[in-house]
Amino acid sequence: MDSYTHPYTFSQRAQQLTSSTIREILKVTERPEIISFAGGLPAPKGFPIDVMQAAFNYVLENKGETALQYGPTEGYAPLRAWVAEDLKRVGADVSPDEVLIVSGSQQALDMLGKLFIDPGSKVLVEAPSYLGALQSFSLFEPKYVAVPTDEGGLVPEGLTDECTAGARFIYVLPNFQNPTGLTLDLARRKALVERCAAAQVPIIEDDPYGDLRYAGVALPGLLGLGRAAGATVIRLGTFSKVLAPGLRLGYIVAPKPIIAKLVQIKQATDLHTASLTQMAVYETVKDGFLTTHMPMVRELYKEQCGYMLEAMDQHFPATVSWTRPEGGMFIWVTLPAHIDGSKLLARAIEQNVAFVPGAPFFAGAHPQTNTMRLSFVTVSEAKIREGIAILGKLIKES
Amino acid sequence: MDSYTHPYTFSQRAQQLTSSTIREILKVTERPEIISFAGGLPAPKGFPIDVMQAAFNYVLENKGETALQYGPTEGYAPLRAWVAEDLKRVGADVSPDEVLIVSGSQQALDMLGKLFIDPGSKVLVEAPSYLGALQSFSLFEPKYVAVPTDEGGLVPEGLTDECTAGARFIYVLPNFQNPTGLTLDLARRKALVERCAAAQVPIIEDDPYGDLRYAGVALPGLLGLGRAAGATVIRLGTFSKVLAPGLRLGYIVAPKPIIAKLVQIKQATDLHTASLTQMAVYETVKDGFLTTHMPMVRELYKEQCGYMLEAMDQHFPATVSWTRPEGGMFIWVTLPAHIDGSKLLARAIEQNVAFVPGAPFFAGAHPQTNTMRLSFVTVSEAKIREGIAILGKLIKES
Repeated sequence: MDSYTHPYTFSQRAQQLTSSTIREILKVTERPEIISFAGGLPAPKGFPIDVMQAAFNYVLENKGETALQYGPTEGYAPLRAWVAEDLKRVGADVSPDEVLIVSGSQQALDMLGKLFIDPGSKVLVEAPSYLGALQSFSLFEPKYVAVPTDEGGLVPEGLTDECTAGARFIYVLPNFQNPTGLTLDLARRKALVERCAAAQVPIIEDDPYGDLRYAGVALPGLLGLGRAAGATVIRLGTFSKVLAPGLRLGYIVAPKPIIAKLVQIKQATDLHTASLTQMAVYETVKDGFLTTHMPMVRELYKEQCGYMLEAMDQHFPATVSWTRPEGGMFIWVTLPAHIDGSKLLARAIEQNVAFVPGAPFFAGAHPQTNTMRLSFVTVSEAKIREGIAILGKLIKES
Repeated sequence: MDSYTHPYTFSQRAQQLTSSTIREILKVTERPEIISFAGGLPAPKGFPIDVMQAAFNYVLENKGETALQYGPTEGYAPLRAWVAEDLKRVGADVSPDEVLIVSGSQQALDMLGKLFIDPGSKVLVEAPSYLGALQSFSLFEPKYVAVPTDEGGLVPEGLTDECTAGARFIYVLPNFQNPTGLTLDLARRKALVERCAAAQVPIIEDDPYGDLRYAGVALPGLLGLGRAAGATVIRLGTFSKVLAPGLRLGYIVAPKPIIAKLVQIKQATDLHTASLTQMAVYETVKDGFLTTHMPMVRELYKEQCGYMLEAMDQHFPATVSWTRPEGGMFIWVTLPAHIDGSKLLARAIEQNVAFVPGAPFFAGAHPQTNTMRLSFVTVSEAKIREGIAILGKLIKES
């Protein structure tokens, strides 16, 4: 303790926060000699820097006073309207006042935790699921229940009456899931929304990667399917993967009574999302920029994914299995049962290779410790091949 | 309920959120014919648009990939160092790793609620206090206890053993308080930090307006005084009033063990604050821009405040009293005991004048309903005189 403090008392939730061993280990991934498959960072090559610069200039030159002033908690009206229109692409028909702009998807998760979770509330999650969502929700002390999954992702038949009874919501990433890279097929999507409608369990559809599809056929989102089936669907979207994550800009789509509550929560959380950022992003996307920009980004991710899959085919032993994503940023690896992902990480780091072990992604389920998540996005082809070769050798020696 | 939803269950905290009558009434203040003294908006004339535009251009041209990528949760290191150095002006000696960058001060309040408040935790507040802080803290269901105040603001002698026992923290705005405009004098500041050190109650010092002093002599902040006295002080600062609020940029200064927990909370709350914004603000302020910019802003606020005080002297009856702020944005008015601020508001709106009635600013105390908060910042001189004349007439008729 510093000399200038005295004892103080943290909340229960803050006391439960512990510094994770994995986070400590992964701090070394910042060293330049490390080949890191651990990150969740988009490729900077995909950032349209010039276009964004022009947009910031336009806004500051023409609408500077509005862009630098406090703005409405709901968000910049033209951007809300753009999002509503854009959602037609995933088969949803929503109105602009069903859209709330937030400071990145992570903030949406925090706000939804505030909205739905009391201590002990049942929350349904995929196992494994996105670690950042689990961190956000956990601050509100839910009781997680894992929905059964298989090699096709979430199994809708697993949503039994016992499983869904009293659940505040189910949290699902239908496209190129983090961490598995798996995509829910159309039949499962339909079965999922129908079961949730019948069981009256709201669905939180988190879709940060949907626009990063580089193989297969695009599928309708849970929002449109769910509304048709009478389910309550809350959809989260972000500009992090289509423009740039450093902007911290995302949105929530929900029925109006839910948006109304979320607006009150957002006001207490950060008043509103930066006006300048919202206006500059609107200027960037309003005339269809993403339809020309995204094919380039998709091609980049497809290549990177291909390099890693090729290297894995070459270097990983037959006792290892992994997903083959149709989009997104991650490959999920299942090791032989006797290999613990976090122990493998410790040895890999000695050889300057890093990844995220799979266990922390499991909530409400027995963690599968023989798993790991690999990101292929920001590493060069040569380093991907070198890093995967090292991992293959370590696995064979284990 | 829309056709595409079924019943769902909100958390206790969300159920307790009610749409305030005042907020509904104040929606009319957006009509152009309304003379609004209700806002808390800084004057757009004070926004350095050209300078900010140059900064955004510099960052995007020279450091675009970093500015658009995910960044560290703690914030942009050069900006943290700038804040630490800048705090010498208020008599505090802090290191950059005691600074955490946040997405506006409102987010700091949310994070401190998460850090310190369990349901039923005792929290000490001035009565009246900043409404936005009460909204943030309330989501975590504290029990508010009001510290006695008088015409000099918070009365340190009111911090008795009974008052401080078990309190998680005390929340104080020492400079040009919102809503009263009052400033704690040096003797009270010293007595406050000494009592809090002895009682082991952390102090949250919120100082959004400190740089807006246009009369009197600057006083050392609670951070420096408190550290010297052995108190735990957490200081909140913002760029909203010295640059522009639409950026949503602020910071928390605290002892390292508290920063460490807040970093974990920030990660779950929104990962980090926008990299581009942090870098552009750093470029704007790093070479002393604020020392030339702030005198112009202060002069503007001083003039505006003067117009309102003059008009009040002219039009308000002797039965009304009000504060004479040395800085900031607000004047606090105490009406004759029989006049209810919210009833006066209803009549004022019929004559196209708006303000915020005082009662909602009181937590943990019997609200003084015969009060109102006036902001003089964004209204023209002529409209200030016209609006105050109307209020004076209404008060005399009441």
